[in-house]
Amino acid sequence: MLLLSQKMQGFADQLKAALLAEQFVQARKMEDKVSAARTAQILLDIPTGSILQYFAEVGWVKAGQVAAHLPQEMVVQLLQQMSLDDAGSLLAEMSLEIIADLTAALPKSVADTLLQQLDAELQQQVAELRSYPEGTAGAEMSPYFLSVTADAQVKEVIAAVREAPAELARTAYIYVVDDNNHLKGVLSLRELLLSKADEQVGRFMVPDVFAIGVQDEAMEAARRIRSRHLKMLPVINQHEQLVGVIGIEQAMELLTYDLADDFVAINAASPDESFFTPPKQAIKKRLPWMAANIFLNLGAVVVISSFESTIVQVAILAAFLPMITDMGGNVGIQALSVSIRSMALGEARLRDFWLAVRKEVYIGLFNGLALGALFCVVAFLLEGNLVLGLVAGIALGCNVLVAGVVGGSMPFLIKRWGKDPAMMTGPVLTTITDITGVTIYLGLCTLFLASIMV
Amino acid sequence: MLLLSQKMQGFADQLKAALLAEQFVQARKMEDKVSAARTAQILLDIPTGSILQYFAEVGWVKAGQVAAHLPQEMVVQLLQQMSLDDAGSLLAEMSLEIIADLTAALPKSVADTLLQQLDAELQQQVAELRSYPEGTAGAEMSPYFLSVTADAQVKEVIAAVREAPAELARTAYIYVVDDNNHLKGVLSLRELLLSKADEQVGRFMVPDVFAIGVQDEAMEAARRIRSRHLKMLPVINQHEQLVGVIGIEQAMELLTYDLADDFVAINAASPDESFFTPPKQAIKKRLPWMAANIFLNLGAVVVISSFESTIVQVAILAAFLPMITDMGGNVGIQALSVSIRSMALGEARLRDFWLAVRKEVYIGLFNGLALGALFCVVAFLLEGNLVLGLVAGIALGCNVLVAGVVGGSMPFLIKRWGKDPAMMTGPVLTTITDITGVTIYLGLCTLFLASIMV
Repeated sequence: MLLLSQKMQGFADQLKAALLAEQFVQARKMEDKVSAARTAQILLDIPTGSILQYFAEVGWVKAGQVAAHLPQEMVVQLLQQMSLDDAGSLLAEMSLEIIADLTAALPKSVADTLLQQLDAELQQQVAELRSYPEGTAGAEMSPYFLSVTADAQVKEVIAAVREAPAELARTAYIYVVDDNNHLKGVLSLRELLLSKADEQVGRFMVPDVFAIGVQDEAMEAARRIRSRHLKMLPVINQHEQLVGVIGIEQAMELLTYDLADDFVAINAASPDESFFTPPKQAIKKRLPWMAANIFLNLGAVVVISSFESTIVQVAILAAFLPMITDMGGNVGIQALSVSIRSMALGEARLRDFWLAVRKEVYIGLFNGLALGALFCVVAFLLEGNLVLGLVAGIALGCNVLVAGVVGGSMPFLIKRWGKDPAMMTGPVLTTITDITGVTIYLGLCTLFLASIMV
Repeated sequence: MLLLSQKMQGFADQLKAALLAEQFVQARKMEDKVSAARTAQILLDIPTGSILQYFAEVGWVKAGQVAAHLPQEMVVQLLQQMSLDDAGSLLAEMSLEIIADLTAALPKSVADTLLQQLDAELQQQVAELRSYPEGTAGAEMSPYFLSVTADAQVKEVIAAVREAPAELARTAYIYVVDDNNHLKGVLSLRELLLSKADEQVGRFMVPDVFAIGVQDEAMEAARRIRSRHLKMLPVINQHEQLVGVIGIEQAMELLTYDLADDFVAINAASPDESFFTPPKQAIKKRLPWMAANIFLNLGAVVVISSFESTIVQVAILAAFLPMITDMGGNVGIQALSVSIRSMALGEARLRDFWLAVRKEVYIGLFNGLALGALFCVVAFLLEGNLVLGLVAGIALGCNVLVAGVVGGSMPFLIKRWGKDPAMMTGPVLTTITDITGVTIYLGLCTLFLASIMV
């Protein structure tokens, strides 16, 4: 049977209907037809109580697979609502990395009692994973891998593959280590398949192995897997001993989240605020930025105040202030996101700073002229004052040019300074463009005040 | 030898140095030490002339692998600067999907003469790939896969794997088809490895195969590969015949770019504008948005004009206009990006609309109060006018609340309407928050004008 999207969607809908109707036996029948990830998606729409009953119905193995795809905040809630015994059983079915993350997110006391439910070896492995700083390869790696010694014969390795536990069923490579577990080589299932049964793997293993240290950045591993088209990257400790692996699925998740974080950062939202972040924490994450923003904006306030005498005489000037600052902000953010995107996708080059400036100058000159002219007409029609229209148009045009150049080139400067380009956030940019905008606009107004007042 | 980041970085640096010094023989020595992707990164910093000499030195096979990682715009430039003969040789070494994309990007006349350099079968395959609409699985698939019939014996399949061309060396699955190439089942190298040499694959193949239609969205395939933890997804035509595959590497690229596109879209930049987009096209992409933005902003202009009489009497009121609109915009974009991010990462749920509203109301009430109070103090200290300070503070606070609720909940409404949440772009949002902001602010000012003027 071909499993096509439409068909699978049908199964998913049936599962959801069953869960909403609290027909858990019915829901269990869909178990093997709907993926754990898809099931997790569906559970997001199901009341917690029903989720717990569903877990009890399908059993902890499936429940563990599904929970692995739920948002962490949600699993934390679920675990705290389950009996200690059930919570332990659920936890035991999840992968080490996830157990480590979850227990790190739970209140310490709860986490400790929960961990005691697991068997000693598992507890010890979790503790080890948690010992690595967040974001390192050690913290993200999976401790499950297949390793053999160089003198092993192909038939022995095949036997090992056959008896490998479920976690290893999908492994792409088998690693070759010496008696002290030092990584010495690697072989793929394909090479194994094409070799004679009694051959020793040392003969045909690939001795040059890409590897990453436990303390290195996990993102570094992910980028390596992507650029080298690897299926798996071994993780070694300071003694070059094999301690874990990072697979291509893991790399995909790391790259996806890293990119998403960049972009919320531009908009001054905290990367670790998800939809499930409790409001209290969300406030903590957002407030500082906005408070700082008030002081950033004082620049524009001061500039405008300094032109008070001008505004007193032609109050209508004020009407165009937000238009000018708003346009500057939007044009700047446009250019900013194009530059940051190019960097995030690995197209960016430091020496491109001047290229970026030239490009934005060119774009800015043209767009500034076009938008300025358009606005000049609009302003004239609106206020019936030609000079005011001209002044507003010129100011808008100039600010569009400035905003584009600042927004488009700033990320390169920041990167050249060795900082994260995403720190050039919207608020900082709009502050700059606000100040330049009102200065140009009110400056010109004051200059031509006489003619405007005519 | 363990290949660790530091060591590889060293090789990359040597290659770059050699290329910059135009020592191409020296550069070739690094060939197998530096990945094609990494080499491409380096070439971004090398003058075109040197790149062509380097390609000539390392040969077309390597050149093709490297060019596959260069930005399309750049390869198009290179191809047009090479002799027809060389361009043909380079093209011939690249994968079908890339040839199809490149020739689609080249001027038609150039593309046609180039394609004639390739052998007839390749030409025909490229034409077929180009026949699928952009973004469909057909357009993104690779036409290289291994397929056997159900009566094939394991040893025959192994022989097929051994003789498979380079493109297939990394394939994870072998597909089972009938005599008319209808997809009937799948088996992994692992299953092959664990079976007896004379067994027929029909016996142990997995008959349930996930597949996607040529006309379905490629992104659908990518999401499926991610959620199902597949290594490869077969692509079938309307007759359920196997015509291609989409691999996990491809899925990673699709997901990464899709996410990046979402976020530039929020900021009203065009997803298909990369750093290498020529300014002329960049202008075309950006200008319409900004022109529309002028008219969007007229809302705020009209509101402010309607309060002209108020501003005439207390010109200093104008000083706080950009502050109020700017804060509203930033708070709104903050909430907007958190919501869109949650959707992009698959945490979003339609029924979360009210949840999102509640959350943002809660956050907005608190942040609004805090920021409003802060701004009240700042404004008072700045202008020495308590009532003005209070009014400005209250207005800012209210606008923060409104902006957060609008920004955080709008994406859910748009998604419920079946549209792409990313279309709720910054400019639209800031227009809304500008209008609400100035209305609340100038409204209150007019209300308390007497006391402000005291």
